[in-house]
Amino acid sequence: MNINTIGIIGAGNLGTRIGLQAAISGYQVNVYDIHEKSLNRSQSSMKKLVDHLTRSKQIVEEEGIQALGRIFFSQNLKETLQNVDLISESVTEDPDIKTKVWKEIGENAPMHTIFTTNTSYLLPSQFAQVSGRPEKFCAFHFHDVFYSRVVDIMPHAGTSTEIIGILEDLGRKLNQVPILIKKENSGYIFNTLLIAWIDAAGRLLTGEIAEVEAIDKSWMVNFGMSAGPFGILDNVGLDTAWHITTARRNPASRAFAALLKTYVDEGKLGTKSGEGFYTYPNPRYKHEDFLK
Amino acid sequence: MNINTIGIIGAGNLGTRIGLQAAISGYQVNVYDIHEKSLNRSQSSMKKLVDHLTRSKQIVEEEGIQALGRIFFSQNLKETLQNVDLISESVTEDPDIKTKVWKEIGENAPMHTIFTTNTSYLLPSQFAQVSGRPEKFCAFHFHDVFYSRVVDIMPHAGTSTEIIGILEDLGRKLNQVPILIKKENSGYIFNTLLIAWIDAAGRLLTGEIAEVEAIDKSWMVNFGMSAGPFGILDNVGLDTAWHITTARRNPASRAFAALLKTYVDEGKLGTKSGEGFYTYPNPRYKHEDFLK
Repeated sequence: MNINTIGIIGAGNLGTRIGLQAAISGYQVNVYDIHEKSLNRSQSSMKKLVDHLTRSKQIVEEEGIQALGRIFFSQNLKETLQNVDLISESVTEDPDIKTKVWKEIGENAPMHTIFTTNTSYLLPSQFAQVSGRPEKFCAFHFHDVFYSRVVDIMPHAGTSTEIIGILEDLGRKLNQVPILIKKENSGYIFNTLLIAWIDAAGRLLTGEIAEVEAIDKSWMVNFGMSAGPFGILDNVGLDTAWHITTARRNPASRAFAALLKTYVDEGKLGTKSGEGFYTYPNPRYKHEDFLK
Repeated sequence: MNINTIGIIGAGNLGTRIGLQAAISGYQVNVYDIHEKSLNRSQSSMKKLVDHLTRSKQIVEEEGIQALGRIFFSQNLKETLQNVDLISESVTEDPDIKTKVWKEIGENAPMHTIFTTNTSYLLPSQFAQVSGRPEKFCAFHFHDVFYSRVVDIMPHAGTSTEIIGILEDLGRKLNQVPILIKKENSGYIFNTLLIAWIDAAGRLLTGEIAEVEAIDKSWMVNFGMSAGPFGILDNVGLDTAWHITTARRNPASRAFAALLKTYVDEGKLGTKSGEGFYTYPNPRYKHEDFLK
């Protein structure tokens, strides 16, 4: 099966990035959002991203111009769905909204279209039936597209194996490393590893076993990584980290969630706010003498 | 306080490496072991290590020759302890043996000597009293000295703060990054992070959520590390990993321990046996196309 046109449903941060990468990879891209404001913001974000990718020499100027020319924005779902071979849905992580959207997509998309959801926390089986084409439905989950170039492929029990092969191939064409999850699971692979690692770092900190810098150093020296758990948390955003940690039940995670909350309440959200576990733009862990 | 002579008690793999690094850093080194065979093996390992460090340009030939000239081997504990300013103990991880050794050291070492244990799993407080000098007693834990250059400093409640400062300084002179643990804790910092990360990877594998390569890839791509959890496990040794995992109580760790046991029983111990989760000397995860 040939994929020529990709439909992006939901023009938020990730929908925007997936759509732009698809256009850079040569696909025709239709971007849909219910809000005009979101479409306008998506369009201007894409231009900024193209500038950034050009400056950092990931693409040449002409590629950027051509890519932007292949993207079509619309507030009309039926119009968006015309001729799309594959849909990537990134609407709000709300089961009711996603259910409504997938029902509408199922009723209006061409019969051959492959359905993918970019959900981070929900499961593909929650929407597969309502889409009317469970065998063509799969989670296809991006991280940030341009820097963390992982795309998770998570089928539900009814996804046809043919679809999985098509998505692996498409992932590579979109400049991502496809990671196959064998069966539906709450949480993707990288996130599962990340959360366990962060949890352990949080336990060491709240248990007053060691300081932030000592914990980060121990990992950075032994594994040659450019950041440790707290440097990574600052990048993730302490508000996001708090949201994830607060949902966990064990006492150690709760203690860490409480600590994260004190940071969030003081407006210390990490890199984006200029302060988190480190201060920015020159955090200690990036100093030359940090690993000494 | 000036440290000139370091006593290494126990000439196994780590004692040998710590002793050699101390000599390279300019210290006089007395190496003690109860077995003549261990001392001979230690001496020949040091020569091989010097060759290796010279070839990989970490030291020049003359430094290696001088370092080896500063090392003295003995089966006589009293002789070894003469004039030592600091002791690094790496005998077998058996509380009874360590207790006996520390009692003897306490009775025979000069009064000013600092006492450190390189224990991986036991606590400094277990031996501080019997040494007769709890205030001078601290864990000073090396990883592998030449590649993983972390040294953990873990005081017990009675360790004097002066000793901690001396050990931080010594750690840097021994070309390590000192990591301060604020209070006694079962397990060092890096190991705590590592075990949580490996446990999560094990759960994904035994839960049949994903394959070895997918799990490793997800981490390697997103964090630019040169190996993922299963590549690291092959380096640690699946026998060692099994020993650590089998001591854990939760059902997921037990399932992973059982899987590791099947590898160990087949002689698949990782890098050192030529096969583990990958096959060596050219494991898939080091191939150019692995992250594609």
